[in-house]
Amino acid sequence: MFEFITIRELYEMMLTGSTMEIDSLEYVELEGWIRTNRDNGKVGFIEMNDGSYFRNCQLVYKGDIKGYDAITKYGTGSAIRVMGKLKATPEGKQPFEVEVKEMELLGACDPSYPLQKKRHSFEYMREIAHLRPRANTFYAIFRLRSVLSMAIHEFFQNQGFVYVHTPIITGNDGEGAGEMFTATTRDDANYEEDFFGKEAFLTVTGQLHVEAFAMAFRDVYTFGPAFRAENSNTSRHASEFWMIEPEIAFADLDDDMDLIEDMIKFCIDYVLENAPEEMNFFNTMIDKDAINRITKVRDSQFKRMTYTEAVEILEKADVKFDNKVFWGMDLNSEHERYICEQVVDGPVFLTDYPKDIKAFYMRVNDDNKTVAACDLLVPGVGELVGGSQREERYDVLEARMKEMNMESEHLQWYMDLRRYGGCKHAGFGLGFDRMLMYLTGMQNIRDVEPFPRTPKNLKF
Amino acid sequence: MFEFITIRELYEMMLTGSTMEIDSLEYVELEGWIRTNRDNGKVGFIEMNDGSYFRNCQLVYKGDIKGYDAITKYGTGSAIRVMGKLKATPEGKQPFEVEVKEMELLGACDPSYPLQKKRHSFEYMREIAHLRPRANTFYAIFRLRSVLSMAIHEFFQNQGFVYVHTPIITGNDGEGAGEMFTATTRDDANYEEDFFGKEAFLTVTGQLHVEAFAMAFRDVYTFGPAFRAENSNTSRHASEFWMIEPEIAFADLDDDMDLIEDMIKFCIDYVLENAPEEMNFFNTMIDKDAINRITKVRDSQFKRMTYTEAVEILEKADVKFDNKVFWGMDLNSEHERYICEQVVDGPVFLTDYPKDIKAFYMRVNDDNKTVAACDLLVPGVGELVGGSQREERYDVLEARMKEMNMESEHLQWYMDLRRYGGCKHAGFGLGFDRMLMYLTGMQNIRDVEPFPRTPKNLKF
Repeated sequence: MFEFITIRELYEMMLTGSTMEIDSLEYVELEGWIRTNRDNGKVGFIEMNDGSYFRNCQLVYKGDIKGYDAITKYGTGSAIRVMGKLKATPEGKQPFEVEVKEMELLGACDPSYPLQKKRHSFEYMREIAHLRPRANTFYAIFRLRSVLSMAIHEFFQNQGFVYVHTPIITGNDGEGAGEMFTATTRDDANYEEDFFGKEAFLTVTGQLHVEAFAMAFRDVYTFGPAFRAENSNTSRHASEFWMIEPEIAFADLDDDMDLIEDMIKFCIDYVLENAPEEMNFFNTMIDKDAINRITKVRDSQFKRMTYTEAVEILEKADVKFDNKVFWGMDLNSEHERYICEQVVDGPVFLTDYPKDIKAFYMRVNDDNKTVAACDLLVPGVGELVGGSQREERYDVLEARMKEMNMESEHLQWYMDLRRYGGCKHAGFGLGFDRMLMYLTGMQNIRDVEPFPRTPKNLKF
Repeated sequence: MFEFITIRELYEMMLTGSTMEIDSLEYVELEGWIRTNRDNGKVGFIEMNDGSYFRNCQLVYKGDIKGYDAITKYGTGSAIRVMGKLKATPEGKQPFEVEVKEMELLGACDPSYPLQKKRHSFEYMREIAHLRPRANTFYAIFRLRSVLSMAIHEFFQNQGFVYVHTPIITGNDGEGAGEMFTATTRDDANYEEDFFGKEAFLTVTGQLHVEAFAMAFRDVYTFGPAFRAENSNTSRHASEFWMIEPEIAFADLDDDMDLIEDMIKFCIDYVLENAPEEMNFFNTMIDKDAINRITKVRDSQFKRMTYTEAVEILEKADVKFDNKVFWGMDLNSEHERYICEQVVDGPVFLTDYPKDIKAFYMRVNDDNKTVAACDLLVPGVGELVGGSQREERYDVLEARMKEMNMESEHLQWYMDLRRYGGCKHAGFGLGFDRMLMYLTGMQNIRDVEPFPRTPKNLKF
């Protein structure tokens, strides 16, 4: 008699289903967790969520129901099963409610439950990371995280890109991309006798490895965890994070920027379409400009400007920057935001950076001073994506590695990709967690990761 | 005049396109790598692959083409761009060829190229892991790996499961699931002064963490890397591998087994549909029974049998096993294969194992001797998936942890999930690499991972 259904299915049916469909469903069975429970002695109201949908289902239980008194005491957080009659409430805040016929307590919630009160600081919530996905903000974030992951996979797979699981444990020491964790089974740092017979690190980038696959599959991408052992406590840095690193063969920097632009726009469209309730929540509660901001980016054409042009503009700008601008410097956030917010008023790629501030693998331009790199700057955040065309010329790459005093022995395999049918290719890196912050307006990377890892922080 | 196109697009058009569509495309431009190049002085033939499709495109170049002599010397592995005239060859081995009008060398291939000869051992190929995706077997494996990844995501996302990035670095010492790597920034094992202020490990399972998310989202899954620091060199163990760990709330062991069965069948269907060329290759070159074997599994109903029943059958069996069977033992591969190959002749779940050989979090059955666990056994391989209903009763879980002499302090958060609306739930773990071995018939885990990590093996 009672048909089992999820809250998502109920909303989908009540909001878009046919009248016939709605009328045919009278008695429903639901399972979920109590968000709130209040009663006036004669009738009670439970807001229940079952994990399937952002919004709750209202349960109405009357005094004549079996176990009424006990039910009034079911606390926030309790797991219940409920059988009841579905009632459309077109005038109400929710399009329907369920009139309870029977209710069963599946899992009680101890009165010490830390999520009793409605508002807690994000700092406090980090201390209960195992429970916070049940609170609205995190419930929205972590579903969005899942939806955005799928957006990434669909974007690349639909175009025939091959997904590559580049290794987490690596013998490369990262070539200056950042401090690294060592992975070991010893306590004496005798790495020659260690598991791998040499020092092993946690990867900071999958790029070098995925380049090998681009030389077989043309278009490839990674999507996996990366690590930084930097002892810095900022709101934008975590020791463990997820990264997307596409690599495309027979492609130059312009192709790379086209791909970045397509991907960003696809992701924005995808989350607006597939997580509308969550995006509305962020737009209401976290960042009142969130949807407007990303919709504008989706609808704009990304500009392109060389680093050199940007420096000229900044030098002439009638603004007092904290850091003086000069050609050759690594631009600061204040400069990047001035360019994309004040000058361009929209997303802009800065290109062709001085080679001395960029990585060894970026392709040297004909001026021999700059490299074919690009950073995508967006209003409100600054840098969102960094990419480059890779140096495909063996001798130029070798000379540059020497210039930077890099040991090349353990990267011989990487250099050899240039000797064996290496063609021009390009790629980029997108920090997945930062993209999530950008889409939602969340300000701290710790609040978009399920169990964030930062210095001295490993409680869970 | 020349329209750029990929080899995949060409095959799709020539095999399924309309005559009009085919006729309208006369001149094409392609980029790719030379697999073979031969000529007779008057006409030459190049087999080219561009990474988009398993099969090659045949290029025909004639003596009157510009640079004929140079082209005859382009070696295997070279990157080229070619402009030519498309010609349908319905009688030929391939449905079309391209008559070359112009060719450009984009990246030469040094004569030292290790992939010159047609056949190399898999062992040899592991030594050139950066180049092996260009060889047929690995070209097929690594595209299939990508396709199977997408199958997993589609299977779960289509049903509303939330994808959770459980942490790689963890403070839990794995509770007996296996030896672990330590992640550190120190060389003196002084973990109190270390990055996280305590010893940090590389995860062996995301299950404990993902259970917290199942208590908010009902249906969740992980898909990410996991690690084992076991110093064993077998063909089925790698130190780094990818794992899928779904977790479902309001669900028992039967629901869990239904989900496993659905997932396996979905994955088989998906790879047959989305990687038919690759699957045909494996069926021809690696395991002549591969497609028949997995098609049978897809079309069968998975049986269910208790461990106790299985032991009774094995004890009565008219077979001499290397290891004597008795109730309470951990079954060996020979026993598992006998059950699914000789007794059931198909996939079978063994259920309700003795609690002493299973993990602390598995739900204790009413007999107090067994737990609600299941292993899926499949012909040809043995165990493919392991799952269980989880112990949702706080006091039972606590007692069991004491019984097993586990320190519970750092798992208090996990136990607390039982105090705060914990309901019955279940989940399982699928080793992604082993699933790939199962589908293809590949015999060594090192040959299905892009850059495999095993003891003393960290060259790349």
